Amino acid sequence: MVDIKKLLKEEAKDVDSLLKELFKNEKIVPALQESMEYSLLSGGKRVRPILTILTARLLKGDKRAARLAGAALELIHTYSLIHDDLPAMDDDDLRRGKPTNHLVYGEGMAILAGDGLLTYAFKILAELNLDAVRRCRLVKLMADSAGPNGMVAGQALDLQAEDEAVDLNRLKKIHRAKTGALFKAAVLAGVYCSDYTDEELSALEIYAEQLGLTFQITDDILDVTGKTEILGKEVGKDLERGKSTYPGLIGLEESKKEAEKSVNKGLKSLEVFNDEADILRDLLKFILERQY
Amino acid sequence: MVDIKKLLKEEAKDVDSLLKELFKNEKIVPALQESMEYSLLSGGKRVRPILTILTARLLKGDKRAARLAGAALELIHTYSLIHDDLPAMDDDDLRRGKPTNHLVYGEGMAILAGDGLLTYAFKILAELNLDAVRRCRLVKLMADSAGPNGMVAGQALDLQAEDEAVDLNRLKKIHRAKTGALFKAAVLAGVYCSDYTDEELSALEIYAEQLGLTFQITDDILDVTGKTEILGKEVGKDLERGKSTYPGLIGLEESKKEAEKSVNKGLKSLEVFNDEADILRDLLKFILERQY
Repeated sequence: MVDIKKLLKEEAKDVDSLLKELFKNEKIVPALQESMEYSLLSGGKRVRPILTILTARLLKGDKRAARLAGAALELIHTYSLIHDDLPAMDDDDLRRGKPTNHLVYGEGMAILAGDGLLTYAFKILAELNLDAVRRCRLVKLMADSAGPNGMVAGQALDLQAEDEAVDLNRLKKIHRAKTGALFKAAVLAGVYCSDYTDEELSALEIYAEQLGLTFQITDDILDVTGKTEILGKEVGKDLERGKSTYPGLIGLEESKKEAEKSVNKGLKSLEVFNDEADILRDLLKFILERQY
Repeated sequence: MVDIKKLLKEEAKDVDSLLKELFKNEKIVPALQESMEYSLLSGGKRVRPILTILTARLLKGDKRAARLAGAALELIHTYSLIHDDLPAMDDDDLRRGKPTNHLVYGEGMAILAGDGLLTYAFKILAELNLDAVRRCRLVKLMADSAGPNGMVAGQALDLQAEDEAVDLNRLKKIHRAKTGALFKAAVLAGVYCSDYTDEELSALEIYAEQLGLTFQITDDILDVTGKTEILGKEVGKDLERGKSTYPGLIGLEESKKEAEKSVNKGLKSLEVFNDEADILRDLLKFILERQY
């Protein structure tokens, strides 16, 4: 078995080096680029781009395209964090171990940095080294996943949920839109950079859904049990804001069981693949056991 | 000569009817959709989509694609207005004659409505009834024009300019990015929905640039001479914020002359077309003479 932690670190380093090069030949207003790169290059786990890359690797797809599509996803993810952290949204001070974007650059520039990252992601997709039909499929995938039917919907539901009681079904709906959609897009982006059978597609779709769910449940758990120094963001914020979470609704032990159930479903979905999918299996287990 | 005012009204009505249908088959979170549609359907002039439609008509391009590409542009334009009006940006209370989005739905939902409109625009483009190569070209065009090299750059420069003295060159740069890029994209989108010669493309590029410039100078002029009731937004805001404008830098009379110069350049560029371009000519003159 590969050392998944080591592998994730190496892949993240590769993603980072790509992200660092991204705007090198662009002439972006310096203050705007600085604000965009401040959040983009602040050392996230890069789980989403890594998922794209590993999925394409499994299916022997186009490596370069998968790296760039993954980068586009990371731009979209970063934009969502910047906007989410704004005072009018979650009002967070700390992200990836550093002061949030608006605390450094001001709210106006933080909004624009988010807008810029989101828009630039689609430029990357439109220019990928793939045939145009595949590029369009990727643009549609990302727009659907990040848009008002996907991530933005989840954020809107989340915003509304601060004022009202939320049951488990509704919480699942919020998670599916806010976090799940982008995880699914990460895996599907890898698929779309490759040739694939319907069976492989369905298997990876289920895997992606269960991975997203696992990620979100452990995220909720870590908000209770985690440490700010390790997480890079403040713990206990959900509780403080009166947000519904898995531990809040079903308790810590049940939450862990739910996460394990998701992991098992995800592992089962990968049965159609041979041991070449072991890395995806290990990644899923890692998400369950992560401390950050 | 056609009655350009009447034609613009009819075309705007057609754009409105398309925009009203846009989310009909989508399942968007109701509060989010309401916020998005509040700004989208508040009766703008629809100059950008009309430009796309008229350009495609001149070149005998695909009508349906041009209507939808124009709609995507209007979504992007509307998102930029919502974010621009936020307290952290221009802090405006009135837009298109109504309270700004954040005053009605709160800042958080206003930010999300903008994000949702921007993202959805790319979904529309990815699904256009054109071959995939053209669709990708349109995605790239819009991402370039609206992104951190285009409109968002202009907004960032604008934000910085509030604290510093700006000369005419810098003002032109801001305008070109903030307003000009999207006007150019509007015309080019019409071109990309059609077959065209290099000569036609260059002519329409110059036309688009001069139209954008004319629009922005008259916008600056109207902030001095216009009436809030007719404009649908507060006048005198530029002055109040200490923003540099054409009238502020070169005076009202010189500004009018600059605008006329742009119109003449734009008209000259259309010489390669016969009288089928008369509508584009009239539109340019209308932009110069508009009171709103």
